[in-house]
Amino acid sequence: MGGVVTRRGLAIALPPPPRPLGAYTPTVQVGPLLFVSGMLPLRAGKPAIVGTIGKSLDAEAARDAVRLAVLNGLSAASAHTGTLDAIRRVVRFAVSLRSTPEFTNHASVADSGSELLTAVFGPEMPHTRLVYGVRSLPGGMPVEVELIFELEEK
Amino acid sequence: MGGVVTRRGLAIALPPPPRPLGAYTPTVQVGPLLFVSGMLPLRAGKPAIVGTIGKSLDAEAARDAVRLAVLNGLSAASAHTGTLDAIRRVVRFAVSLRSTPEFTNHASVADSGSELLTAVFGPEMPHTRLVYGVRSLPGGMPVEVELIFELEEK
Amino acid sequence: MGGVVTRRGLAIALPPPPRPLGAYTPTVQVGPLLFVSGMLPLRAGKPAIVGTIGKSLDAEAARDAVRLAVLNGLSAASAHTGTLDAIRRVVRFAVSLRSTPEFTNHASVADSGSELLTAVFGPEMPHTRLVYGVRSLPGGMPVEVELIFELEEK
Repeated sequence: MGGVVTRRGLAIALPPPPRPLGAYTPTVQVGPLLFVSGMLPLRAGKPAIVGTIGKSLDAEAARDAVRLAVLNGLSAASAHTGTLDAIRRVVRFAVSLRSTPEFTNHASVADSGSELLTAVFGPEMPHTRLVYGVRSLPGGMPVEVELIFELEEK
Repeated sequence: MGGVVTRRGLAIALPPPPRPLGAYTPTVQVGPLLFVSGMLPLRAGKPAIVGTIGKSLDAEAARDAVRLAVLNGLSAASAHTGTLDAIRRVVRFAVSLRSTPEFTNHASVADSGSELLTAVFGPEMPHTRLVYGVRSLPGGMPVEVELIFELEEK
Repeated sequence: MGGVVTRRGLAIALPPPPRPLGAYTPTVQVGPLLFVSGMLPLRAGKPAIVGTIGKSLDAEAARDAVRLAVLNGLSAASAHTGTLDAIRRVVRFAVSLRSTPEFTNHASVADSGSELLTAVFGPEMPHTRLVYGVRSLPGGMPVEVELIFELEEK
């Protein structure tokens, strides 16, 4: 997958599905639930952005990183189903931010991902969310996101 | 919802369901599973408690914060189903504690939430749990909890 | 359970299922999904290893700790089902590492668990994974893992 896909009349430019960083797989489906591995702000297999939010990175850079990680997750999911139209909604969107201990503005950073997901799946299909600040992330990247999708019935 | 509800003959005073802090929704149901967004120790939409466990807050204050966050989660879930009696059990209870690096007493803090859930759903319906210490949380609050419920069949 | 079990012709020495550290249960099943509580590198109910990865512990010690936590999770799951053969696969493998802020080699540490799970369930049944660095863990232990399994249909 990857390339420009459409959903709800919206054209979305998806990156190629990211390759796992270790001995695991991007997606596993159980019934209507599609579990997706932790997604990072990788571009062409390399960290597109590194740093700590509140120290070397500001909230706007973190918002960009969340969007890229979410796009990687959408690409992984659509590589599984063959098309974004086979996905009904996001069930759960979890966001880990590599931040300073003093950082408090998690909601604003995570909203960049939520707004993208709302554009793709529609406001009538909202998702649950949780966001917290972690101490370290793979490769020094500032965000990692986890997505659980509900697929359309066949 | 909110107000006093009963379950198993127990009267439980629930706060009003909390409003999301961003572009997401409190609950999404897939089959019998009800996913609930990350719940914080908010009261009337404002942090009821802020700080870092092991530094500005002790374990007892953290236990209070976990209880409040769990009550918010119960309120969100019962706003979804209309009644607590439609909920069979908690499947998964995840607790993030904003702590110092040296903090080790996670089990005692998380137990305040587990004890509340056991009072509500009964010892014959125990839940799985995980707890870890994070570096930062939204608004500087000391705890965030995540609940996945199993609903009764209709 | 515990003791030597076999799966796919492989003999696996499982520790006895760990006792919960608080008011919760090791496993809850909903349909084909088996949720397992956070698993730690406990041996006979006591921390087998403590410390911070990147400071008092190196990556190899962390890899050992992940393997032990995963074995505890397999033991808990097989205590639920009665046999490892009733488990089809791991759906989701989440790894929390107690690390320094500068730690970046999460993938290598988590791979020790992924490689063990791949040996048990086979390369044709891979799992999704996420790994991040937390600030503190129960009892000062360096890793905590969470496993969601898919069970075989009866």
